[in-house]
Parts: sequence; C-alpha cells; structure tokens
Amino acid sequence: MRPPVSPSRRTLAAELAAASPGGVVTLRGHVHRRRELARVTFLVVRDRSGLAQVVIRPDDGVPAVPPEETPVEVTGVATANAQAPGGVEITTPTITALSDAAATPPVELWRPKLDASLPVLLENAAVAWRHPVMRARWEIAAASLKGFRSYLDARAFTEVRSPKLVATATESGANVFGVDYFGRPAYLAQSPQFYKQQLVGVFERVYEVGPVFRAEPHDTVRHLAEYTSLDVELGFIEGHRDVLAVLRGALASMVDAVRSTASDAVELLGLTLPAIPAEVPVIHFAEALARVGAAPDEPDLAPEHERALGEWARDELGSDVLAVEGYPMRKRPFYTHPWTGAEPGGPWSNSFDLIFRGVELVTGGQRLHRHADYLTAIRARGEEPSEYRHYLSAFEHGMPPHGGFAIGLERWVSRLVGAANVREVTLFPRDLHRLTP
Amino acid sequence: MRPPVSPSRRTLAAELAAASPGGVVTLRGHVHRRRELARVTFLVVRDRSGLAQVVIRPDDGVPAVPPEETPVEVTGVATANAQAPGGVEITTPTITALSDAAATPPVELWRPKLDASLPVLLENAAVAWRHPVMRARWEIAAASLKGFRSYLDARAFTEVRSPKLVATATESGANVFGVDYFGRPAYLAQSPQFYKQQLVGVFERVYEVGPVFRAEPHDTVRHLAEYTSLDVELGFIEGHRDVLAVLRGALASMVDAVRSTASDAVELLGLTLPAIPAEVPVIHFAEALARVGAAPDEPDLAPEHERALGEWARDELGSDVLAVEGYPMRKRPFYTHPWTGAEPGGPWSNSFDLIFRGVELVTGGQRLHRHADYLTAIRARGEEPSEYRHYLSAFEHGMPPHGGFAIGLERWVSRLVGAANVREVTLFPRDLHRLTP
Repeated sequence: MRPPVSPSRRTLAAELAAASPGGVVTLRGHVHRRRELARVTFLVVRDRSGLAQVVIRPDDGVPAVPPEETPVEVTGVATANAQAPGGVEITTPTITALSDAAATPPVELWRPKLDASLPVLLENAAVAWRHPVMRARWEIAAASLKGFRSYLDARAFTEVRSPKLVATATESGANVFGVDYFGRPAYLAQSPQFYKQQLVGVFERVYEVGPVFRAEPHDTVRHLAEYTSLDVELGFIEGHRDVLAVLRGALASMVDAVRSTASDAVELLGLTLPAIPAEVPVIHFAEALARVGAAPDEPDLAPEHERALGEWARDELGSDVLAVEGYPMRKRPFYTHPWTGAEPGGPWSNSFDLIFRGVELVTGGQRLHRHADYLTAIRARGEEPSEYRHYLSAFEHGMPPHGGFAIGLERWVSRLVGAANVREVTLFPRDLHRLTP
Repeated sequence: MRPPVSPSRRTLAAELAAASPGGVVTLRGHVHRRRELARVTFLVVRDRSGLAQVVIRPDDGVPAVPPEETPVEVTGVATANAQAPGGVEITTPTITALSDAAATPPVELWRPKLDASLPVLLENAAVAWRHPVMRARWEIAAASLKGFRSYLDARAFTEVRSPKLVATATESGANVFGVDYFGRPAYLAQSPQFYKQQLVGVFERVYEVGPVFRAEPHDTVRHLAEYTSLDVELGFIEGHRDVLAVLRGALASMVDAVRSTASDAVELLGLTLPAIPAEVPVIHFAEALARVGAAPDEPDLAPEHERALGEWARDELGSDVLAVEGYPMRKRPFYTHPWTGAEPGGPWSNSFDLIFRGVELVTGGQRLHRHADYLTAIRARGEEPSEYRHYLSAFEHGMPPHGGFAIGLERWVSRLVGAANVREVTLFPRDLHRLTP
C-alpha cells in the first residue's frame, strides 16, 4: 500500500503567491483553460482555491497538453509574473494527466462571464457548477449555513433532525407528495413545524437545516418542489417580537459569515451585502396594506406589494429587511397565536413575514401553547383532534409560550446574489418539470 | 406591543450556582418534580441548562403548586443550600404558571433512571425525550454533528445539499421508496453518492449532512427506514487510505466536540469516550476473515465477525476503531475502485469498512474516476450507460481520483452511548412498522 500523500507536497493555486520564487511546486487541479499560441502555451489550472497560470515553452519537453477540464498534476518552478493570478506563475512544468482526456464541456467554463441559458445550465449541472460564477453562488449558500448555525450554537440552540416521512398530510393537506411506505400511504414532510414545536418541550431552543417538500403545481421563478429550510423554534418567549430578534441575529450572522468566509465569491459576483439593522423595522399588516394602496380587507400581501414595501424599507429606512407583523389569523396556519398587542384592533395574529429586498423570505411568529386552544383551533377547521394525537400530546403535557421561523435557503441566496430565478442558486433543482439531473 | 424580554431578566438553572446569595432571581422552566411534604414543598424546575430546586413553605403564600411538566416562571431569593443542585436553591418564591396545568406524563420524567419500555418511549416521543437521560443521548448526537462539520470546515470542505427526490433507483435498485411526483414515478434517494461525486468536480472537497431513505424490509436493532447520513467526498487522492485519514480526523473531532460541548450529557450517561488512535489500525479483508475463522471465500463480514474484530482491536490494539480494507469487488457498488496495493493479490477493492466497537459504522473508499471504467462497470451489470447519463457527464468531462465515506449518525450515537437499539437515539424513528409519531 502506498502511504497517504503528505499535504505539504501540494501547493494550492491561492498559495502560489506566497511560494518562494525559483522553488519547485506541485499543483493539482483541472485544466481550466488551454491557450496554444505560436511560441508558448498558457495553461490555467483551477483547484478548490482558485486559478493558477502555467507557461509551457517549446523546449520544456511537454508532449501534448491535456484538453480543458482534464484533471492534472503540474510540477514546475514558481516564477514571478505581474500578469499572472497572484503575481506568480509556473514555468518549465511537467504535466501529468490524472485521468483520460476530458470531453469538451457543454458550457464554456473558462470564459469569465457565464454565457449559457438556464435550461443548459440545469441540464448540465454537474459540469456547469464548475464555472467560477456558479460556484461562487453556492459558496454564498454554504457560508450562509455556517453563519446560521454559529449564531444559534452560541445561544444554546440544539440541532435536531425530524423525520421527512410522515403518516398524515395534516399540516396543510394540499401540495404534498405521496410515498409508498411498505405498502401503506405516507407523505413527505412539508416542514418540520410539528416536530420542532414538540422539541421545544425537550430542548427549549432548537434548529434544523433540512429538505422540505412541496408538490408545488405552479411554475414560478421562486418556488421549488424540494428546498432547504432553516428552521428555528424557541420557548419561554413573550411574543413574536422575541422570535424576530433571533431571526435578526441569525440573518446578521449569515451576512457576517458570507463576508468573512466567502469573500472571494462576494468579490467575483460583485455583491453589495445587505444591511441588517440592529433592530429589524416592523410595520403592521394593516399599515402595510394602506402604504401600498391595497384594500384594507386584503388577506395577504401580493408579490407587487412586497416589492413596493421592500423599496420603501430600502429608501426610507435604509434597511434591506422589513418585518410585517399582525397578519390576519384566517391566512395563517391553525397553530398561530392571536394578536396580544394593544393596537390596532382586528383579527390579527402574533405572526410576521420578513421581506428581504422585496421578496417574502421568512415566515414566523408565536404559536399557540395551551392544549385547549389547539382543540378549539382544530375543531374550527372541521377536523378531529385525534388526528393530531401525537402532536397534541406535547401540549397536553405542558408547553411554554413559544414561536419560531423558517428561512428558505435558496430564496435567501437568490436575493443575495441577485439571481432572477431560484433555480440558479440550487445545485440540482426539483420542480414541476424537472426531476433530473 | 410589549417590548422583547431582556435576557438579563432570566436566570438559567445552571447559572444559579453563581447567583448572589440573597439576590432575587427569576427562573423559567417546566416543573420537573413536585414533592409535597407536611411542612414544605420541594419543586424542581427543569430548563434547557439543567435542574434547580425551589423550596415552598406554608407562609410563602404560594397557592397551589402546578403539577409536573407545567411550564412556570419562578421568582424568589437565591439561597445557599449544600443539598440543592449547584449548592443554591430558591426560597420564598412566587410561582406563575405559563400555561394550563399539564396532564400526568406517560413516562415518569422525574425519576433519575429511565424506567419505560422502548415501545412506550417511542409512542410517547414528544414527552419521553424530556427525560434527562433521553435528552442527553440526543445532546451527544448534536455535539457529534458540530464536531463533524468543524473538522471539515477547517479543511476547506464545502457543505452541499443534494436532492432527495430522484428519477431512478439506479444506485441499488432494491429497498427504495417510490414517490408520486406530479403523476410520474420518483424515488427517495438512498444516499447522496452520485451527487457528492459530481460535486467533487466542482468543489474538490464536499460534505453533506442529510436524511437518506432505505425501504429496509428487515426489523433489526440497527436499521432504520430513514436516517441521518454524514457524507464526505474528496478529490485528488492517491487511494482509499487518504479517505481513511479524513475519516479518522472527523471521528476524532466528533469525540472532541462531545467531550467539550456535551460534558454534562457524558457525565449523566456515565460514558467512556472512545479512543480514536492517531492512525486508525487497518487490517486487510482476507486477513480479517482468517482472524475470525471464516472461510476465505466469504464475500462479506457477518455481524459476529465484526464483533470479534472489534474485541480484538480493543484488546490487542487499544483502539475502538478498526478499518477493514480490500473488500472483494463483487460485494461493493459498481463505482468502487479496484485494489491498487501490491499485496495480497485477489479480486480486492480500494474500499474499507470502519468497525466501531464491533459494529460496522462507516463504508468508504476510492471510486472509479475514468469515464471508460464506468462504461465497463455499468455494462458488466447488464445495464445501459445511458440510464446514468447525468452522473456520467461528470466523468466524461474530467474527474480526478477521488473517494469518500458515509457515517450513519444514529449508529454512531447508539454505539457511543451503549444503546441496544438504534431507535433509542433517534428522535422520531421510522421503520417497517413505525411511521409515527
């Protein structure tokens, strides 16, 4: 058995700038670009850290240079060149292909600008994501996940894992995927809602990062059949404003993590990171309707209302986020806690949506916590509490006032990077038409 | 709207030890135990940090003390008492119930020892997990996840999210759950294998923590229909030993995180944390068979073989982990890379299983990376490469030598805490018979 490779043997592209001039280094990566001129061939090698330039001259004795995307090992001399990435290039190389010659990619990965239609990118995801611009988008997503967790971990939230296979479609009933579960009907969970609430009784503060499934019959730029939900739930709150404070902290931490751990991606994409104020501005639902000129009996905000509110928050309040609180009870799930604030009167709830740059990103709020209130709410839907037996046992056996929220990762990233379609920031999106790759 | 509660208003049970004697503090938690003696009532309050004792005397003017599990707010005087948890108890309290009186729990949560059968625990999961012993088990799991990620994050692995809804059941074909996907057949992913490999071409080093689904027709103590898989894949390796080195690092980091962030749980459960040596001892499959007295043509290790090998590793090598490398190709998946070591000869593979305390915990190894090798391997199964079109496009367009592994979270935790059944450490287990709660 050969011994494992010592990590010191390999130099990453990003480390080349710090290599001793004249020293011999070994890179490993894909051929990102091969440019054969009359008297010199330029090779750009791409590894996980970035790009490095290799210069091949006729008397270097390099036989054929492998085509683009072939994985290679390049050993040569680190040589200063102000034109090369990082100011250092590799000269007099020996080049070893680490696999067979790669076929020409369906997307021109070496072009700085991503020049392919969305269907082409989606159909060729395995290769298209290699483009630095595509990759940078996902690096924003991965950094966001880090920031989300680090904020909650530091505040004694416990990470939980709830089942995605469930026995009933009770939470909403519609848009649910059916599964053949050993011959019995089962469903894919539309959210960890019921489980995260039950687990507040155990851990008091919980979060989960996991897939959720919506048999979404609409073909829109912001809906997916499977997406990543960042779920939080916490107990012993006074009201939904406590939940909003945690949401603000999580979002600010996500932005911080993007700034600190994905700075190259931020630069490559030319992003302006969002301003998350120390306190998220809050507007009541009734006031929001009035501000956008909607009828006072509208049950929900339409996308154009969200856009207008987003612009108002940005221009007037200097904030990329705006919380709309007090949505009418009739448009919120049955477990929503009614309004406990003094004014304005009306059929309001202790719930909120968070609008991020003009799009609804988060739904959250306080939940009911008294067993009797659940019985009433479920019966008011014309349903039997016995169908919710397991869920209700948590409340029967004592649950504190609690609430939480859920952030859609893909929606967050798409607004952050300015993607027109949520599919552009999803590694392998699933929708009404697409189940592959 | 009431303002959010200032965090300084609340004292956690674990903070009580540091409270100024004679100072007024406010606790929030569930009534863990109510013990009414002739002249005094003892109340134990449980919050996310632990337990605190409250003493109620007749002249304190406390009307009725809420029953166990009711969430309460207790304000009183911090008073030294060597017998109380942390050496401080609360006296002269006022007690406010934060919900209706809780019904008697189906499991006696206040007893130090967990005294209920597994079916009772599973059926009443929402409440049973409140028992400190149950909760401690999950805290071990949550800490393990932290340690897993922190090790990989520090080594430039990118967290990815692969789809759980897939179009084909090609990876194994058997034991797969079918889904009605907008009227078309789809399946639940049995692993992120194909996706994590493709993403090595993008990020070089990736990991995913997510659910995997197995329509496991066997009713055993170590199989679940849905479990949490900790998946890793990395490129530019020399062989499977490089993969094993990353696995070792991840496991050691998981143990460290359990030690440092779940020390209370470790103590409560009386755990001896595993010894993960600086290098995992490795035995070849052929030698392993010989050591346990199995026939040399056995294609796999049986559970009793794994147990025997685990005992041998512990007693002779002082290690709780043992890697068995070189499994026969015919028992490994088609993407497995054949053996590249010098000896012993035979139909071996560059793959390994990791045995942790006598149970197979991890499967890993090097994968094929040449497109032509995949075509051959797929045809050898009697299948058409076109069925694997999207997966194969990654190899067609250049993939480096790579490999990876997958750890089953629940199996890891069950061995760590000494649980007889993997269901004891799963929040809401799914199996042949159980789809609720």
